[in-house]
Amino acid sequence: MYENQIIIDGLQYCKADRKYFQGLKDANITAVHVTLVYHEDTRQTLSGFAKWNKLFEQNTDLIMPVMNADDILLAKKNNLVGIFFGAQNCSPIDCEIGMIEVMRKLGLLIMQLTYNNQSLLATGCYENTDSGITRFGKQAIKEMNRVGMIIDMSHSAQKSTLEAIDISSRPICISHANPLFAHKGLRNKSDEVLKALAKKGGLLGFSLYPFHLPNKSACTLDDFCQMIAKTADLIGIDALGIGSDLCLNQPKSILEWMRNGTWSKDMDYGEGNANDSGWPDGLPWFKNPSGMKNIYLGLEKYGFKAEEIVKVMGENWLKFLENSLTKLT
Amino acid sequence: MYENQIIIDGLQYCKADRKYFQGLKDANITAVHVTLVYHEDTRQTLSGFAKWNKLFEQNTDLIMPVMNADDILLAKKNNLVGIFFGAQNCSPIDCEIGMIEVMRKLGLLIMQLTYNNQSLLATGCYENTDSGITRFGKQAIKEMNRVGMIIDMSHSAQKSTLEAIDISSRPICISHANPLFAHKGLRNKSDEVLKALAKKGGLLGFSLYPFHLPNKSACTLDDFCQMIAKTADLIGIDALGIGSDLCLNQPKSILEWMRNGTWSKDMDYGEGNANDSGWPDGLPWFKNPSGMKNIYLGLEKYGFKAEEIVKVMGENWLKFLENSLTKLT
Repeated sequence: MYENQIIIDGLQYCKADRKYFQGLKDANITAVHVTLVYHEDTRQTLSGFAKWNKLFEQNTDLIMPVMNADDILLAKKNNLVGIFFGAQNCSPIDCEIGMIEVMRKLGLLIMQLTYNNQSLLATGCYENTDSGITRFGKQAIKEMNRVGMIIDMSHSAQKSTLEAIDISSRPICISHANPLFAHKGLRNKSDEVLKALAKKGGLLGFSLYPFHLPNKSACTLDDFCQMIAKTADLIGIDALGIGSDLCLNQPKSILEWMRNGTWSKDMDYGEGNANDSGWPDGLPWFKNPSGMKNIYLGLEKYGFKAEEIVKVMGENWLKFLENSLTKLT
Repeated sequence: MYENQIIIDGLQYCKADRKYFQGLKDANITAVHVTLVYHEDTRQTLSGFAKWNKLFEQNTDLIMPVMNADDILLAKKNNLVGIFFGAQNCSPIDCEIGMIEVMRKLGLLIMQLTYNNQSLLATGCYENTDSGITRFGKQAIKEMNRVGMIIDMSHSAQKSTLEAIDISSRPICISHANPLFAHKGLRNKSDEVLKALAKKGGLLGFSLYPFHLPNKSACTLDDFCQMIAKTADLIGIDALGIGSDLCLNQPKSILEWMRNGTWSKDMDYGEGNANDSGWPDGLPWFKNPSGMKNIYLGLEKYGFKAEEIVKVMGENWLKFLENSLTKLT
């Protein structure tokens, strides 16, 4: 039964308020990977933590912070929603390697090495040329491995992603992206990347963002389940989870900021274009966190076994976090 | 006569104190491109300006700030040493395009797109793979062109340098490096780069840093003049100046900081190695700013014409600054 399971959404960036938290609880979400950072630097990231500290203080009946996998089990037991943080960019460490441990201790459990563009560590998926992991990037990966900060390559280019998988002594994740075979898009991942990811024990979170899906906003729940089935055939069920990329109640200005940060004077439209510059229409079967139950039921209907479904819906994320968040001695 | 000429050193990073300024004045240096930044971010760069504001206030009899080419002529007229600022990295703009105009207005006239490593804008000469100018880099070049901030590719990798020359609507400089034909080193530039640079009206400042010279610290003044002569044959005398890279009275800790910034946990030795980790021995004929006169006399002895010598010693830099520092309408 859905309500008894560990349900983990491996990426959301929703407007953080009591209504959102209530919605997560009502939808039986056990834990959510919340994006703390798109472009924020070290100092701004600290303000992000401060904002969430206040939210935790004011909503103790709904949410709790997650620092390790046990906290997710505790959240389930106490009927709270566990929140764990990640950055979609390496901007929280500025250009200082020592900030990795500082951020990890504050609760930044996951960090992308780059967000679409070239970063100091690696190349993003929107650049023309992918130089792979940089000199600083190699040191950052080693340090992230040491302190137990998870490497996320969702928005990275292919060569950089393959090198990160190879260089990292720990499994990495692609928290929110889909296979390229399901939909051709700069953000989606090739069979080669998916195979390399799974071979090293990594995890892929399937995205519900229409720009990453077959037929975009017209993608059916059945299409989505078929994509999961094909990916399971390719790399095995144990490497699969959900990373919905849900962005509830965010204005268009937030989308423009995600795409442009402070680096661009011209308007960059990301996966859209000048004539299609706003948020894509949401999926009717994934309008909010309660869509997770639709996926659960959809997978049942598609013919997945019960033990496969619970893996995809949360147990794989839980196990991955369990293995990833310990500090190496 | 040397004393009547415009003498410009296109790069120094010496300990900034009254003794240094007196030495510049005594050596008849008209203007110096002073490195304000190696790794400093936006906020730290402001403190760098504040430090220099105080130095200008306390040493009005020796130095004056240079914001344009006319200020250099004024410095000459008033028997002062003109100081103009550059950054060896793009760190002063953090990840914000708008910081280019802010920094330019404060007096940052020159900025390297990268210092040895990959930056947000381009690839440095120590990286294994050179991805060229990034998405942010293309916008930054356009903005630097607009506000009249000079692009410097001294520490950049080859593809990035060629692309910067090509993309920039204005001539760029390589303020301090030598031709690869004179000495094989990661920091030195190929014939292809030098030709492309000069074809677009750019400028090369010859470095006196032993790691960039034939026979390193044993390089003779005659070797140095021969390198200039060969480069003049290759790309013409009008593209040539001096950018000594003089780092007087800086402790080894500064060299280690240049090389490692805050990005590296392991010690990086730059152009040196674990057994040769300190400052290289200085050239006997270029121990301090008075070495500029030795070069002047050396070029005479080598057989350069008087009008060629004054170009290399400062007039080419002056003309380049004249053309580069105006704001586009």
